[in-house]
Amino acid sequence: MDRFDCVSPLDFRYYVPNDRLRALLDDYVTERARVRSEAMVEAAATRVLARMGVCSEAVADEVAHAAEVVTPEEVAAEEARIHHNIRALVNSMKAHVSDAAKPYIHFTLTSFDVIDTATAWRLKHAALRGLLPALEELERILIALARREAETLQIGRTHGQHAVPVTFGFAIAEYVSRLGGRIEAVRTAAENLRGKISGAVGAYNASSLMIDDAEQFEREVLAEVGLEPSPISTQVVEAEFVTDYMHALVSCFGVLANLADDMRHLQRTEISEVAEEFQAEQVGSSTMPHKRNPWNFENVKSMWKQFMPRMITVYADQISEHQRDLSNSASQRFLPEVIVALTEATLRLTRIMGRLVTDAEQMRANLAMTEGMIGAEPAYILLAAHDHPDAHEAVRRLTLEAQQSGRPLGEVLQASEELAEYWSRLTDRQREIILDPSQYTGIAAQKARSICDLWEERLGL
Amino acid sequence: MDRFDCVSPLDFRYYVPNDRLRALLDDYVTERARVRSEAMVEAAATRVLARMGVCSEAVADEVAHAAEVVTPEEVAAEEARIHHNIRALVNSMKAHVSDAAKPYIHFTLTSFDVIDTATAWRLKHAALRGLLPALEELERILIALARREAETLQIGRTHGQHAVPVTFGFAIAEYVSRLGGRIEAVRTAAENLRGKISGAVGAYNASSLMIDDAEQFEREVLAEVGLEPSPISTQVVEAEFVTDYMHALVSCFGVLANLADDMRHLQRTEISEVAEEFQAEQVGSSTMPHKRNPWNFENVKSMWKQFMPRMITVYADQISEHQRDLSNSASQRFLPEVIVALTEATLRLTRIMGRLVTDAEQMRANLAMTEGMIGAEPAYILLAAHDHPDAHEAVRRLTLEAQQSGRPLGEVLQASEELAEYWSRLTDRQREIILDPSQYTGIAAQKARSICDLWEERLGL
Amino acid sequence: MDRFDCVSPLDFRYYVPNDRLRALLDDYVTERARVRSEAMVEAAATRVLARMGVCSEAVADEVAHAAEVVTPEEVAAEEARIHHNIRALVNSMKAHVSDAAKPYIHFTLTSFDVIDTATAWRLKHAALRGLLPALEELERILIALARREAETLQIGRTHGQHAVPVTFGFAIAEYVSRLGGRIEAVRTAAENLRGKISGAVGAYNASSLMIDDAEQFEREVLAEVGLEPSPISTQVVEAEFVTDYMHALVSCFGVLANLADDMRHLQRTEISEVAEEFQAEQVGSSTMPHKRNPWNFENVKSMWKQFMPRMITVYADQISEHQRDLSNSASQRFLPEVIVALTEATLRLTRIMGRLVTDAEQMRANLAMTEGMIGAEPAYILLAAHDHPDAHEAVRRLTLEAQQSGRPLGEVLQASEELAEYWSRLTDRQREIILDPSQYTGIAAQKARSICDLWEERLGL
Amino acid sequence: MDRFDCVSPLDFRYYVPNDRLRALLDDYVTERARVRSEAMVEAAATRVLARMGVCSEAVADEVAHAAEVVTPEEVAAEEARIHHNIRALVNSMKAHVSDAAKPYIHFTLTSFDVIDTATAWRLKHAALRGLLPALEELERILIALARREAETLQIGRTHGQHAVPVTFGFAIAEYVSRLGGRIEAVRTAAENLRGKISGAVGAYNASSLMIDDAEQFEREVLAEVGLEPSPISTQVVEAEFVTDYMHALVSCFGVLANLADDMRHLQRTEISEVAEEFQAEQVGSSTMPHKRNPWNFENVKSMWKQFMPRMITVYADQISEHQRDLSNSASQRFLPEVIVALTEATLRLTRIMGRLVTDAEQMRANLAMTEGMIGAEPAYILLAAHDHPDAHEAVRRLTLEAQQSGRPLGEVLQASEELAEYWSRLTDRQREIILDPSQYTGIAAQKARSICDLWEERLGL
Repeated sequence: MDRFDCVSPLDFRYYVPNDRLRALLDDYVTERARVRSEAMVEAAATRVLARMGVCSEAVADEVAHAAEVVTPEEVAAEEARIHHNIRALVNSMKAHVSDAAKPYIHFTLTSFDVIDTATAWRLKHAALRGLLPALEELERILIALARREAETLQIGRTHGQHAVPVTFGFAIAEYVSRLGGRIEAVRTAAENLRGKISGAVGAYNASSLMIDDAEQFEREVLAEVGLEPSPISTQVVEAEFVTDYMHALVSCFGVLANLADDMRHLQRTEISEVAEEFQAEQVGSSTMPHKRNPWNFENVKSMWKQFMPRMITVYADQISEHQRDLSNSASQRFLPEVIVALTEATLRLTRIMGRLVTDAEQMRANLAMTEGMIGAEPAYILLAAHDHPDAHEAVRRLTLEAQQSGRPLGEVLQASEELAEYWSRLTDRQREIILDPSQYTGIAAQKARSICDLWEERLGL
Repeated sequence: MDRFDCVSPLDFRYYVPNDRLRALLDDYVTERARVRSEAMVEAAATRVLARMGVCSEAVADEVAHAAEVVTPEEVAAEEARIHHNIRALVNSMKAHVSDAAKPYIHFTLTSFDVIDTATAWRLKHAALRGLLPALEELERILIALARREAETLQIGRTHGQHAVPVTFGFAIAEYVSRLGGRIEAVRTAAENLRGKISGAVGAYNASSLMIDDAEQFEREVLAEVGLEPSPISTQVVEAEFVTDYMHALVSCFGVLANLADDMRHLQRTEISEVAEEFQAEQVGSSTMPHKRNPWNFENVKSMWKQFMPRMITVYADQISEHQRDLSNSASQRFLPEVIVALTEATLRLTRIMGRLVTDAEQMRANLAMTEGMIGAEPAYILLAAHDHPDAHEAVRRLTLEAQQSGRPLGEVLQASEELAEYWSRLTDRQREIILDPSQYTGIAAQKARSICDLWEERLGL
Repeated sequence: MDRFDCVSPLDFRYYVPNDRLRALLDDYVTERARVRSEAMVEAAATRVLARMGVCSEAVADEVAHAAEVVTPEEVAAEEARIHHNIRALVNSMKAHVSDAAKPYIHFTLTSFDVIDTATAWRLKHAALRGLLPALEELERILIALARREAETLQIGRTHGQHAVPVTFGFAIAEYVSRLGGRIEAVRTAAENLRGKISGAVGAYNASSLMIDDAEQFEREVLAEVGLEPSPISTQVVEAEFVTDYMHALVSCFGVLANLADDMRHLQRTEISEVAEEFQAEQVGSSTMPHKRNPWNFENVKSMWKQFMPRMITVYADQISEHQRDLSNSASQRFLPEVIVALTEATLRLTRIMGRLVTDAEQMRANLAMTEGMIGAEPAYILLAAHDHPDAHEAVRRLTLEAQQSGRPLGEVLQASEELAEYWSRLTDRQREIILDPSQYTGIAAQKARSICDLWEERLGL
Repeated sequence: MDRFDCVSPLDFRYYVPNDRLRALLDDYVTERARVRSEAMVEAAATRVLARMGVCSEAVADEVAHAAEVVTPEEVAAEEARIHHNIRALVNSMKAHVSDAAKPYIHFTLTSFDVIDTATAWRLKHAALRGLLPALEELERILIALARREAETLQIGRTHGQHAVPVTFGFAIAEYVSRLGGRIEAVRTAAENLRGKISGAVGAYNASSLMIDDAEQFEREVLAEVGLEPSPISTQVVEAEFVTDYMHALVSCFGVLANLADDMRHLQRTEISEVAEEFQAEQVGSSTMPHKRNPWNFENVKSMWKQFMPRMITVYADQISEHQRDLSNSASQRFLPEVIVALTEATLRLTRIMGRLVTDAEQMRANLAMTEGMIGAEPAYILLAAHDHPDAHEAVRRLTLEAQQSGRPLGEVLQASEELAEYWSRLTDRQREIILDPSQYTGIAAQKARSICDLWEERLGL
């Protein structure tokens, strides 16, 4: 087979051909990685059995070796025969050890001791070693951009309408902060993933038959692979550890999608404040050779639309009957897809944001479009501060006049006889802001910088 | 690469190793199939250009040949260079034709003329030639089962509680009917998928430049691949055709999941009315060798949990800005995954339901468990029919008495002095039903058969 | 209580204070309507019993009267006592009839005969008499708008980028067609809702005890309320009839949300092609008196975000164990919320679209922004048609030149020595389009009109 | 109006008639509470203005009084006139103060300073004072139950099949732990909700015009209502604080739904290990007077199905354009519905679990059903431990023999010549467990107790 025989775009388009992505995630998200991690758990269990004197260290060494050499091909062949994936792994590993060691593979374990623990290990490290380094790189890029553009004037937009000014760096700092928060959330949830070695129904029925302190056995096996146990388990770990982890991923994806969406709109022909850099050979459209489409930003949003709804599956999988039904078995096999998609989107955004083309002149031109109408807010505030009894209504009427006359709002206000008394009370600085509301940026630049400082420190970047 | 390097379970576990599934779907759902179907649309367009005299038939023949020989490998290599998938296809096809033919590949088309039309073609035939034959086979199996078990007594259950009797065939007939309805829904939606050859913004800007009746051109190109046009389009077909199609798939999946869930519960140890057949070599549990788990039924429900939420993506993709934004491009690449998963579940259920082990004796034993308490309903009806003023309350009190005394409800009723007058008015047949409520199956058997007849005819099975 | 004590915004904000909405829906969607419709089904059943000779017509008349006079207050009080909603209805109705009539209320029925049938009746008529007239009014408004603006030039946008021209009427016609399609889909699904009078487990156990042809009894009762039976039922109607109905609603909501989203973006300050009409007293922003926010359009999209995910509940409710579990009982009580929200959004959009402010001058100005760059597509097509071997690449390079020099693309092309030979072969009309690509609208205006004609006829507007 | 004129079941059925629920939540979730909390934020802002010397304390006192007396009726009337909800609140409050105070209501604030801050306050306290006390009461009930039943033997079930034994208290302890974890998650998320007083685009444009340290102003206003600021904001607080909060609610709902689902299945007629207590007057079924349906458990699951998908809305609302679009305004009005539904479900489960009827005898009888087949696991473990080379396969064959012969597995094993040597090596205790596998409960009882101790301490119950 080759990748063109695949049916999942994740495989044929987004993962397999992406070397950078594979370098980050290959050890955690492929089927090959699954087999390897499950074998690793089997080896860890035997190692602890040896430590506890149930078998010899030589046996544990044999099993450790088997865990390294067993292949997914062998396991798949055995599973095709016996229709049980973990028993297939165990049988395949047994084929690599002496008869003396055979009984101590999977000894007192149930399948989901191995599966849940290995899954926790894979998801944890896919986050810690794959996704998080990628997210931190994106965060660094955003911090650099926010600092560089901290003073670059841009109109703030609410409802798609010009509101009052900000700076472009301030707008980016919002994403520095939100992404920073999600980096912490992903890390926390990943480090809190749990394993279990408590047997078929979670009561340590089998292990306590052979080992005095079955919970100690569980703790030690899990410690071998860097995990802690679920406080209690059925056949499986308490569902909420994975649920929280997936929530962290999906809500992080939402931040990326929002950033992508914003950039996409700022790239609209009429706005043109930013652009994806285009490569020399790149084709924008198959028939419209002039187009420079924000297709990477669109791609990030599109992938979010595909993967965000997976949380429904995760929430549905919280429900499992009694000591477990297996209607969450197949569905959970798909969990790694989400981290693959999210990491892919992160790398993509990092690449694009790192060479984002910004146009400060166009930002200024857009800001000027409404001819000072954005001065309505400071005008209203200042009139009110100087005791105008109904400042909001007074300014609302002025804006209508300004619109009809085509004159800047500041001028109209300055010329108003009705408001002359209030105008006279304003300070020079206050008048200046009304007449040139591009100065009305509050503490945007300062806030952009302090947010960058804050997250750089919190994340140790 | 091999399948163990994939990250989607759909590829490495459910699709690639499943020969029967690949035989049904390979021509429609893989990346290879995508390229082939898009090339086919390009060839169709050139064929109609020739018919309309814009180019020669020889040119159309060349392009048709190019469409057959162009490979996904070539296209992928070109896309890596120019970052545009359809332009990559066009360039790759051009490499297979003479200079004279080159201009007539993709002539006046926009990328999504090709993509949307090819997608409609693939989804349509994946349903008509892949999924629907599989669903019809399952329907036949269910009809045979419903007929075979039309008279097999089974307790009807509501709220998980014994209610009043049905037959097992009647219970299965419910699925015959619901699945029959979905087969019709899938067929209708698949046949209603539409293509478009209306250019970059749907107004036939390019094609009407060269061709007098651009809508006629569109109709003819689509007719070449067996499709009709969207009534109007932007860059893309009206979204609702695919939306309805996906709804048909997902709601069909719900019926399979419900059937699987029912069977799963009937296989509970305490109920044991049905069982998945077990193969000789099959392992039920890695540590509990006695177990016969309903894992295929669980798998179907689990896959439904994974794929049902994809409708959120489909609904979100109804929204596209103006003549289109591309935030539905990546997400729509995942559409074929749903039909793959649904077809896989259909084949699985067909296999299992075709050799379902049923236990009529156990069904009878379960029916007898409540010692005639299920006669409460006919007792109440008959008392009411014979003018008891508060029959429901009278019987409710009898059931408490029966529960406390451990005597069958029928006996308690027969012995009741208070109700003696009513008892005397009943016919023999009516008394018989109260005393042996296993006869209280209404028209279950007859209905099971008539439903089988109905759907067999409607679906032409 | 008053509406401020409610917790659902649907009640306190969107439904209760909206007289127009209540006039359309009050008879179908309130709790009061639920009780009335269930009593109506009880009366229908007794009417058919009388027709079949099981009870007298006088009894049926009594029950019909009871169905009219019974109040939700009575039923709620009784339910508080006995904790069963349909038994509470039955008891309450019995209080309004003679002892002779009492036994014939709910005679042989099960609760869900009444609930499912009454729900089907309410959902059906909420659509036919509430939502659909509202949707048709919106369709008329859109048709009028599409015709009025059929010739109004507007730049077509893909990826938010200027592509090639359309007309504004053409853009609206897309919604005429999509909405027209959904009107048909909603009507079809509403008319296909089914009832059932088949007893506790669907096998007519009770009714066949007293009536020879229990299916005939079901058909006649349902005919009394204008419904047809589910082909087969358990305790409840086959789930897919309601599932299809909800899909029709939710996918219709998606079309409204897309329209709202488009208008919202066209109202962006930088684009300013359309605007919601503002009332004299209306406040745009609490602090920015100049703002004219597209808040109605935003509201429609926001409500879609709230109600679209409800399909997950509907799909989950397809699964019910055996002859039914009741885990879909509470959830289905919420179904009418979706039709309320959708009808509210329809009325809102109708109001806003009916007085939409459009700015043809601004549309023209926007179209001119890219200085003829949108002529790239016709240029490429025409070069290719005149046998340029690599027209797409040639034009792509010209657009870069035009961008750098600031000259219109048409001029650059006309001046190109390299392309002079091709230029000479073009017809006058073809040169005209390249030099003034605002003429490059394909058949937009004609298509806008034919789509309006098509849907006007199909929907009988 | 009365509640029967409502369209949301949450109002007419679940909230308004439920005194206990209203007592917990009325101050936070109704429309009345919304107005009050927003007025409170306005008052807090004026108080800080006074403290900072911008206005007098007398003015702040007036505004505080206005905040107490302003009614939702007044605000609604004003909103009907001017179509802006916060400006309506401000105008209504102004009507209650002197002219001197009027300018200092909403001074430098934007609407969403008030709305987002008030929403955070309401959601926070709805959790801390409403939901969490209810959850803790449920946790106490579960702890008491787990302790009471710590030794009560029950068969552990996986795939709905008998696996190996646990105790019922152990099974409940799983929910003690999962619910405990969610109580912590809800508390953490609720306490982490943030407000903002940063103006129309988040850059403190207005407030920094009048106040030197605008961030200090924000901190102080929020401190007045017990909140901290969002690290940075646009027009609104960073979306992830509410997103995390809603995730905590929805994932907590999943734990309740799982518990309800388990109890529901244990109440199946064939299992009958637990039951909802039935009241004397309660009606189980409208036609089947004998039924005792687990309708409260079903209700909890059903409500979960209705409210869990709301997370899709929450995730979609993470995306807001630029400094904000308002397509998340209406949708966020629905957020309190989720906490109402969850609190209702908590109270319901508390009531039912507090008087759950358990049947230890039936649990024992069920455990005995498979005639010792559940001894397969310890048998296999012990054989393996005594060096049987293929214990799993040996025992699998024994179970087939036991099944065919109808003899207990232990006896078959004891009688096996092939295994005689291994049998002889077992200790008496080990043989005992194989012959009476009801003793094979691992450390279930001990674990049940230690989990109860753990959570009692962690939650300070």
